[in-house]
Amino acid sequence: MSHPTIHPPEPLPGTDQGWLLDPSVVFLNHGSFGSLPVAVAEAAERHRRFIEAQPIARLGRGAADLLRAPKEALGRMIGAPPERIGLVENATAGIASVLRNIAWQPGDEVVTTGHVYGAVRQALFRERDLHGITLREVPVPLPIRSSDDIVARVAAALTTRTRLVLVDHITSPTALVLPVKLIVKACHEHGIAVMIDGAHAPGMVPFNLDELGADWYTGNLHKWVYAPKGCAFLYASSKRAGETHPASISHHYGAGMDQEFGWQGTRDVGAWMAITDAIAWVDAFGARAVIEHNRQLAAWAHQRMVDSGCFEPISPMDGSMRGSMAACRLDARWRTRFESVEALQAALLSEGSVEVPCMELHGDWLLRVSAAPHNRPWQYERLIDTMRALDRRA
Amino acid sequence: MSHPTIHPPEPLPGTDQGWLLDPSVVFLNHGSFGSLPVAVAEAAERHRRFIEAQPIARLGRGAADLLRAPKEALGRMIGAPPERIGLVENATAGIASVLRNIAWQPGDEVVTTGHVYGAVRQALFRERDLHGITLREVPVPLPIRSSDDIVARVAAALTTRTRLVLVDHITSPTALVLPVKLIVKACHEHGIAVMIDGAHAPGMVPFNLDELGADWYTGNLHKWVYAPKGCAFLYASSKRAGETHPASISHHYGAGMDQEFGWQGTRDVGAWMAITDAIAWVDAFGARAVIEHNRQLAAWAHQRMVDSGCFEPISPMDGSMRGSMAACRLDARWRTRFESVEALQAALLSEGSVEVPCMELHGDWLLRVSAAPHNRPWQYERLIDTMRALDRRA
Repeated sequence: MSHPTIHPPEPLPGTDQGWLLDPSVVFLNHGSFGSLPVAVAEAAERHRRFIEAQPIARLGRGAADLLRAPKEALGRMIGAPPERIGLVENATAGIASVLRNIAWQPGDEVVTTGHVYGAVRQALFRERDLHGITLREVPVPLPIRSSDDIVARVAAALTTRTRLVLVDHITSPTALVLPVKLIVKACHEHGIAVMIDGAHAPGMVPFNLDELGADWYTGNLHKWVYAPKGCAFLYASSKRAGETHPASISHHYGAGMDQEFGWQGTRDVGAWMAITDAIAWVDAFGARAVIEHNRQLAAWAHQRMVDSGCFEPISPMDGSMRGSMAACRLDARWRTRFESVEALQAALLSEGSVEVPCMELHGDWLLRVSAAPHNRPWQYERLIDTMRALDRRA
Repeated sequence: MSHPTIHPPEPLPGTDQGWLLDPSVVFLNHGSFGSLPVAVAEAAERHRRFIEAQPIARLGRGAADLLRAPKEALGRMIGAPPERIGLVENATAGIASVLRNIAWQPGDEVVTTGHVYGAVRQALFRERDLHGITLREVPVPLPIRSSDDIVARVAAALTTRTRLVLVDHITSPTALVLPVKLIVKACHEHGIAVMIDGAHAPGMVPFNLDELGADWYTGNLHKWVYAPKGCAFLYASSKRAGETHPASISHHYGAGMDQEFGWQGTRDVGAWMAITDAIAWVDAFGARAVIEHNRQLAAWAHQRMVDSGCFEPISPMDGSMRGSMAACRLDARWRTRFESVEALQAALLSEGSVEVPCMELHGDWLLRVSAAPHNRPWQYERLIDTMRALDRRA
């Protein structure tokens, strides 16, 4: 294979320090649940104690004030006005809020891709069981041919019964950045609503939600925005905001997204306040520089993995569909050596102290690496060395 | 009024120390959002850091292990097996989980009382707007005549269209312990399902859920179990468990409450782990002794408030319908002095540093005090003195 040599990025000074991660683990799976800077954890703890000192004044009368700064900072980052952003627990809750509030008719179809996140598929099965909707998964075979091919496949699956298209911004098992803007355009040409599952996207790729034009968009902040767990958002377009409610209705039903999502019953608002601190933590290194570091590191790691002979590429080699994660396919010989992807994942941890997810998708075995600010090139070399050792031993 | 003199309880040594509360506020509103012992807050912080050190090992592969101890301790406290307990964010989420998963037919009726929590009324309005159900609120006039009267009123409101009865275990604006066991019995005689909103009940009154027999029960743990915010539960009877799902469906749809509620997407499991620590914190003082202290202190405070002439009782003077909160009615003169209940509440805070909720219910002005382990008799005297000063000044 002929390709230009890719070099790893210059590490951003200081970004490998001050994490809560156990340094004895080679942690190549920031993507699943994120990892947390000590400074952001401490900020959340301060906020929680601030609230607990005067719970009624600060949470009862002051919750809207506490959420103003985090929602404004988030709005600037994602290109959306705070009044059309609702903070939620996680992207799963964002999806639930939208699915729960659609007045489904039996026979309504939801179109997604075969790379849809497993939990979202289950959430759609719940709608099927409750309301008689149909789920249509558009196959997207590996390796990916092109971004345009995916748009064409989704567009070809739309019918007069399609009520909603629900696609990932960045797919979970395959780590592909999907052409969501083109998908939104294709669906809107047919008058079909689009929800984007951006579970992995905020802080991994830059985007502007009002420009993107999706009807709904949900994103996690505990991953690539480095916020505490429990921090995520649901966005609605101006057309959809009035019909968008949280899954848990509380005092402000009908008062608009800002108030309705701003109070979903008593909860840990301190975590949400720390969104401001997480964004400031990234900004101190330069938000674009962090995104670029991670992207370059993932691109370098991907190249190294492919060159090692242990991994097959599934995304275009030009990197046009990758962010700060890279997934590769494992060839058939690995199935003869391990009973399951879980067994391979366990072996990588026990043999090389490497924590990296191995997943099965439609019969393919996939391995996905993440490139977070705390990651350094030697960690991917460790993965490759461990794979080679497992290969030799078999 | 002739009545036996009530004495305040002996304070439990040490229970007024080690809270995150600002000591400059006379905090008589533990009931709304709870207040948090420092030891429990620190435990939650430890648990969060434990998880963040190895997020995949501990949260990804180990979440069920992390939740075993808190669910077992909780199950022992509330008389329910862990496999029919789902941890949720708050009672609002518990209500949402049940309402969301009923296959409503247009015209289905939900019966509740006129003392229903405002947010629950809104949640039922959402079902009305989505599915055409009807909400029937049984009036329960003040002062309360008897517990039996409430059962009779609810039973008389049941019709062939009643699909669900949703009543509070302990009402929010009026702080009444409702006769939920008799209500469940009356409804089940007509084959009608019952959900109990126990937002205020766990740790305030002892109960055993499998003996109580309700179809569903939700309760908060951040109030009278002294757990961090974000800790609550939903219980289902063995008959209902199979049809009970969280509002946010994730990977384990259909696998049973333990697994389905145990993973509702990435969230702050550290707070849930601290349920164990909160229960241990109470147990160190004696769980029954804490409940009894709070109940006696509320009874004494209620008597002092009524005797002061500033407050009218709304619950039976024998205390049979009170737990560790007591609500009283304010006579008509207060309306001439304050524009709103909020203005009165603000005056009590600014004049006496007393944080206590004032609420309006069907035209009545109500004031509710809580009696938590950190409360002492002088704090209620401060409330009464401040009311008298406001009365004199008018």
